[in-house]
Amino acid sequence: MTQTTTTASIPRPDRTLAETDRTRHRRLREQGSLDRAALDAILAAGFVCHLGVIVDGSVRVMPTVYGSDGTTLYFHGSVASRSLVSSPDAEVCVTVTHVDGLVLARSAFEHGVNYRSAMIYGVPRPVTDDQEKTAGLRCLTEQCAPGQWDYARRPDRKELAATALLALSLDEASVKIRTGAPDDGDGPDAARGRWAGVLPLHTTWGAPQPDPALGTEPPAAPHHIAARADTPAS
Amino acid sequence: MTQTTTTASIPRPDRTLAETDRTRHRRLREQGSLDRAALDAILAAGFVCHLGVIVDGSVRVMPTVYGSDGTTLYFHGSVASRSLVSSPDAEVCVTVTHVDGLVLARSAFEHGVNYRSAMIYGVPRPVTDDQEKTAGLRCLTEQCAPGQWDYARRPDRKELAATALLALSLDEASVKIRTGAPDDGDGPDAARGRWAGVLPLHTTWGAPQPDPALGTEPPAAPHHIAARADTPAS
Repeated sequence: MTQTTTTASIPRPDRTLAETDRTRHRRLREQGSLDRAALDAILAAGFVCHLGVIVDGSVRVMPTVYGSDGTTLYFHGSVASRSLVSSPDAEVCVTVTHVDGLVLARSAFEHGVNYRSAMIYGVPRPVTDDQEKTAGLRCLTEQCAPGQWDYARRPDRKELAATALLALSLDEASVKIRTGAPDDGDGPDAARGRWAGVLPLHTTWGAPQPDPALGTEPPAAPHHIAARADTPAS
Repeated sequence: MTQTTTTASIPRPDRTLAETDRTRHRRLREQGSLDRAALDAILAAGFVCHLGVIVDGSVRVMPTVYGSDGTTLYFHGSVASRSLVSSPDAEVCVTVTHVDGLVLARSAFEHGVNYRSAMIYGVPRPVTDDQEKTAGLRCLTEQCAPGQWDYARRPDRKELAATALLALSLDEASVKIRTGAPDDGDGPDAARGRWAGVLPLHTTWGAPQPDPALGTEPPAAPHHIAARADTPAS
């Protein structure tokens, strides 16, 4: 049973996530981790988060892209997006999840999911300085497609002004990870002799698809894009 | 440019999602859909949602498994989970997202993601009747692994009592879909002649991994599990 053993072997203050009332693991504590490296790895492995905000008293959960530089998570939206600008001082929760497989146990009750998940809490700070905004958008673009910031045209002043970029500190975060086989391999249900195990889920990049607007003989995709085909995406 | 044309060709009241203040598409309206069939398809293609709740005034977004029977979305948790039981009358937002690829445009500003996403709002109803709870757990288990409810041992009374099952109506839902190429193929940036297009993201099931507790000669995985290997998972 290899359920979650990501706790840092030598806890150091700067590599251990601080516990708060929100990030303390109450249930399934064995799936919780205070390892800062685990947080970094989960964020590095993805580019889409689920952003939770409160709008007019209602909770709203929206998928959006993010970038992380190790201390700050950046996410953006049009300045017209009321979810991001209606409550400038409101707390948000950003969750990044990678689903790694189904845990198929002997009993329906013990079924579960292998996953890696990070939850980050805080009040995002609007980034208004053009230089910082450009750096944040670079971080976000590179998170999606490393190498793309130097390949694509960068934002001009008008585009920068039309983009609301928010910066969220990674200081208050919670990590949960589950790996490995089902938990009922040594229980009474094991005597039934039925198959149990994990059905893995793989996320991979496909081959680049040229924009039809490039015509019938499009240029080759740049190496930093083409080289990702058939590689794991999370 | 094939950006989102999922609107039902013949709108019928029961196949069209009702607009509310929360589900009305304000931004990127071309990505919004009121097609009930689009909602059903997005829910059918997944098994993990992001559940947004308000706990002690803070928003919290948690990944969890779900099942949908076409009118109701079921999700569960231990009865010890304070997020689910602390606010029995509180509204939630459940979001299901499939990420289909990166949209790599000529300009960083036009970059985006191809995705299918559904957001469902409402006050979940705790399912207390054992018969309904069993049906809901069957729905949830079958959503994860079709055929598994008849293969695994079903929940006994003690397990039913230890499971908090919640039912959320699909009545108030919002769908957003983006497909196709970048949007700047006919703009001034196209003159640069650089590659642009989509890098697809594929999610597939892997080969079943037997629980090591089954020993060195484990039984074969049942057909309903083994047959999923190498098939798309979303």
